[in-house]
Amino acid sequence: MPFADRAAGYVERVERALDKRLPTADVRPASLHTAMRYAVLGGGKRIRPLLCYASGEVLGIAPGRLDDAACAVECVHVFSLVHDDLPAMDDDALRRGKPSTHAAFGVATAILAGDALQTRAFEILAGDGTSDATERLGMIAVLAVATGSRGMTGGQAVDLESEGKQLAAADLEALDRDKTGKLIRAAVLMPTCAVADLPAASRVALDRFAKCMGLAFQIKDDVLDVEGEQALTGKTHGADAVRGKATYPSLMGMDNAKRRADALYAEALAALDAFGESAEPLRWMARYIVHRDR
Amino acid sequence: MPFADRAAGYVERVERALDKRLPTADVRPASLHTAMRYAVLGGGKRIRPLLCYASGEVLGIAPGRLDDAACAVECVHVFSLVHDDLPAMDDDALRRGKPSTHAAFGVATAILAGDALQTRAFEILAGDGTSDATERLGMIAVLAVATGSRGMTGGQAVDLESEGKQLAAADLEALDRDKTGKLIRAAVLMPTCAVADLPAASRVALDRFAKCMGLAFQIKDDVLDVEGEQALTGKTHGADAVRGKATYPSLMGMDNAKRRADALYAEALAALDAFGESAEPLRWMARYIVHRDR
Repeated sequence: MPFADRAAGYVERVERALDKRLPTADVRPASLHTAMRYAVLGGGKRIRPLLCYASGEVLGIAPGRLDDAACAVECVHVFSLVHDDLPAMDDDALRRGKPSTHAAFGVATAILAGDALQTRAFEILAGDGTSDATERLGMIAVLAVATGSRGMTGGQAVDLESEGKQLAAADLEALDRDKTGKLIRAAVLMPTCAVADLPAASRVALDRFAKCMGLAFQIKDDVLDVEGEQALTGKTHGADAVRGKATYPSLMGMDNAKRRADALYAEALAALDAFGESAEPLRWMARYIVHRDR
Repeated sequence: MPFADRAAGYVERVERALDKRLPTADVRPASLHTAMRYAVLGGGKRIRPLLCYASGEVLGIAPGRLDDAACAVECVHVFSLVHDDLPAMDDDALRRGKPSTHAAFGVATAILAGDALQTRAFEILAGDGTSDATERLGMIAVLAVATGSRGMTGGQAVDLESEGKQLAAADLEALDRDKTGKLIRAAVLMPTCAVADLPAASRVALDRFAKCMGLAFQIKDDVLDVEGEQALTGKTHGADAVRGKATYPSLMGMDNAKRRADALYAEALAALDAFGESAEPLRWMARYIVHRDR
């Protein structure tokens, strides 16, 4: 059965797992937990959890051992969306076709919901604090490095500093390798912590795949910001241009941006060659990322 | 040598350790790292790290094994200060006698600096992701539970909801047990993760001590907001009253608030009885917390 036939099942799986791992709205403080659930359970493509399960399939890890990792990386992703949408940041009132978290719950609650979602990611990965210590600690280290000031959050800081400035394409790539790429990379690499004695070459290959796809993902996002249908993307159309944000289409032209994404896609596939047939799940994910329409 | 003579040394120790564990301002993105260092290294009483080292002394753990825990709990504390001071939250332009982080660096950078400080806490505790896995994972679990939506961040959410409302003293205590108490508790309990075969009774006693001191600490904070000298506290004087915030002095009167703090202090000391002389470091910390003037 090709991964295409399992992807929807994995999306349902991670959404059930997230639902179980987030306190319900009747747990105090109700406003905070309602906002956290609104932000996380309100849809989304779940690309990072899918990458996590796909990478796990390639490595022969049962999905049950990756539910915590898949939930944690999604919680970090959603925390970043909630904070990036804030008025002091990208000031976006629309997310996934609905009011963004601060538009629905107020700025203070949105800040706290983002904060608590980040914490929840690490709490989920910590489990009961004693079982599978080596595996869980490894995943925490991978996720923390990807999330912090030299990863996703650092990339967002550079992104804000860059607004209205003239960037070279190489600067934009460096920024996006942190802002978007590092978390994509963590999704692919966390499963390696569950494999004792993974050959170094396999980890290097997965890392190369993930780096290429992290950047291809962002280029595709920029393309969709121009060409995508708002009904599908659920985002304010052309928001990057309005904000004076450098994007790949604006810096290198639409055709070159698409060509760059294709080249990264090809490089990502090449990195998987050593895995042979067994890498089909990640090949499918790569195709899905560069060919999606939302 | 009494703990009083070592406390200043521990403050210097954790500040050196924090300095080493935070990226310098020449690491990209410079603005974010500058803001993180400004927030963390700009003074402070370092009460949580001190509690961590004091608890470690009681348990016979060398300080070198607790530097990461002490730094992590302080990073979480400072992240909460940076976010609590934001205009959408407590809107405080002054912190430790200096401009608060958003006043000095802007709101967007302050949000990101708080986010990245939280991540850094877990990154520090994760270490290299492989060594001392059981000990480190246990500490991460303790810190995450204390930080999240059922701990410090949840307490702040309830605090914001409560502004301008009439609270009973019991509601305020419940709120502060989360908002302030949980992180104080984590500081005292993280060292227990470094002791194999700690008797359950010892952990219970430390927990009781920490819960009492967490609340006593907050009552003392409220008292200082009214009676403290701004030059010493470094905070806007009477800010709680201006904000319509319920405080212990406003709810129960100044004398009763002080009596409640004294009763909690006595209960905290009683919890330490089983440790005998060896608990002197935590006894000193308890006295320091309820008798401080800033």
